[in-house]
Amino acid sequence: MNRVTGLVRVVGAGLLGTSIGLALRKLGVDVAIDDVSPANQRLAIDYGAGRKPESTDQPSLIVVCVPPDVTARTVLAELKKFESAVVTDVASVKNSVLNELVAQGADLSRYVGSHPMAGRERGGALSGRADLFFGRPWVISPAPESASKSLIVVEQLALDLGAVPTRVSAADHDRAVATVSHLPQLVSSLLAAQLTKAESADLALAGQGLRDTTRIAASDPKLWMQILAGNSEQVRATLIGFSRDLDRVIHALEDLDAAGALSELGEVLVAANRGVSLIPGKHGNAAKNYSQIVVMIDDKPGQMAKLLTEIGEIGINLEDLKLEHSPGAQIGLVELFVLPEVEAELIAALGHRGWAIAG
Amino acid sequence: MNRVTGLVRVVGAGLLGTSIGLALRKLGVDVAIDDVSPANQRLAIDYGAGRKPESTDQPSLIVVCVPPDVTARTVLAELKKFESAVVTDVASVKNSVLNELVAQGADLSRYVGSHPMAGRERGGALSGRADLFFGRPWVISPAPESASKSLIVVEQLALDLGAVPTRVSAADHDRAVATVSHLPQLVSSLLAAQLTKAESADLALAGQGLRDTTRIAASDPKLWMQILAGNSEQVRATLIGFSRDLDRVIHALEDLDAAGALSELGEVLVAANRGVSLIPGKHGNAAKNYSQIVVMIDDKPGQMAKLLTEIGEIGINLEDLKLEHSPGAQIGLVELFVLPEVEAELIAALGHRGWAIAG
Repeated sequence: MNRVTGLVRVVGAGLLGTSIGLALRKLGVDVAIDDVSPANQRLAIDYGAGRKPESTDQPSLIVVCVPPDVTARTVLAELKKFESAVVTDVASVKNSVLNELVAQGADLSRYVGSHPMAGRERGGALSGRADLFFGRPWVISPAPESASKSLIVVEQLALDLGAVPTRVSAADHDRAVATVSHLPQLVSSLLAAQLTKAESADLALAGQGLRDTTRIAASDPKLWMQILAGNSEQVRATLIGFSRDLDRVIHALEDLDAAGALSELGEVLVAANRGVSLIPGKHGNAAKNYSQIVVMIDDKPGQMAKLLTEIGEIGINLEDLKLEHSPGAQIGLVELFVLPEVEAELIAALGHRGWAIAG
Repeated sequence: MNRVTGLVRVVGAGLLGTSIGLALRKLGVDVAIDDVSPANQRLAIDYGAGRKPESTDQPSLIVVCVPPDVTARTVLAELKKFESAVVTDVASVKNSVLNELVAQGADLSRYVGSHPMAGRERGGALSGRADLFFGRPWVISPAPESASKSLIVVEQLALDLGAVPTRVSAADHDRAVATVSHLPQLVSSLLAAQLTKAESADLALAGQGLRDTTRIAASDPKLWMQILAGNSEQVRATLIGFSRDLDRVIHALEDLDAAGALSELGEVLVAANRGVSLIPGKHGNAAKNYSQIVVMIDDKPGQMAKLLTEIGEIGINLEDLKLEHSPGAQIGLVELFVLPEVEAELIAALGHRGWAIAG
């Protein structure tokens, strides 16, 4: 299934560059990894992310994985240096990179911007992992001038790494990430910043909710200043929307007995429930295009395997699965997610085989 | 090590009541579980959280696990009905409950407020789990009038359930949870509420950061309106602090080239790093004392069943299981959770059978 052919040159041996190198090396692809810092480069090579570049290298694909503020100039330099290579980058902002390339008169037929929606709060080569992109969306943002064969090469890179290529224009990408990535980052950072004002005894009561909401606040400030600077207008618009709702809540809390105050608070909490349900994929709620069936099983070894074996026999494909395992409880709940058109069939077949369907 | 003696009466068969019942039953303690809703009560009893109360019951300890707005009146009724029992409650606010009990002239010598810092975004008996409190702080807030022997009983309950009893006054508790629980809840809810304004294609790019920061936004609005109403002054103060910092960021983003704008942004991001580092246990990562093994499977029918069947053959019990399934991806990741002492054995056995272990 490996379709990337020839040499892949990775420029930048941070988290993303190293992870891409590791994943491609696992597939047997020849990878040369470069970095302005010889120490970073050596680390990534030692780690297995590729080999040292050689002067005779003729890469078919170049993946630029440097910080956002030097992405455009690096892409430009690589396009010039390797005249037949396709070049992509993985910067978290796409519009400002594209605009700079246009302004500099780059050969855009060989350039396709991209952005794998994967990361970790820790950067650096040593945080790299070959499975970083598994199952993640990988935004592909071609310029109007990008050649379709360039586009195909970059989409194949995403597929080879187990990601889901998603074609989105640079402008649409930047608007989307303002909401799904940059806003959560700033909100999480602002929340974590409040903890520096708290008494340390108070923080001893922290639970999982605080840990989850502040996990990404541990991210690299330098990197994030660049990302936010590259998308400041869109980010500011989302923050203003957030701030307006926040003001409503602060006002409501001033006197909850006042007419409408409690419902004001309730509206935000209910909208929040709805917002969470809109996030596709696994997140407490089902992806909205799947039907959910809950099966109760005895909480003992072999029951899950039996259930899944029988679903295989019934011949229906599971889109997703969650186990509600409760140590101490005598039953477990298995949430099955299937395409809506096979829901009734599966419920009937499982019922016929004696499985207990909840709800 | 089990020290709770006699009958424990649990009032309220929701998430917390059911979890407490499950955990105590596992220790062999006699548990009677009551609920105003016969359906809830039957569900909790079927689930293994205790037995039906009897008219001759003489509980030594009563744990009130009802919503915050009816906690004080329920505590009062239980104190009157069972004249020698110690009564505790698990409400997320402590000061308003205590004030109401004082106002009603309750026998405070037998009352000790408490609050286990554990929960899930989904409530109800079927979400209950015996290990819910494992490794979590359990706030114990005695009234000045609480007898020390009452205090000991409640602390022992927390210890029996694997929690870490932490003595904090009701007033200090409410100030602390405003920062570590109520502020994160509202911020997460406000963030998730913004998603209802986004285009649905934008949400397809959501990554783990958005999922983590909005997980608790799926919590029950009704419960949270009560919690916030019971601590509105403290919560409002933390929101105002948050809002002030948010305004600074919005202002900085207006013109990042202005003198001081970039450093204003940087200060928040750096303070956030520090804030995260102040959360205790962040790196210890307590709570779950299971080892995690990630197995890569082909995303086609029967693969999960095959994996689980083979784990059954190997003879190792799964403590929990998570499927990282991504629509469109050709590979799924299965996270297996097992006791640390069998981790190496399972990895070896799965590897021997040809399964691909990640990382």
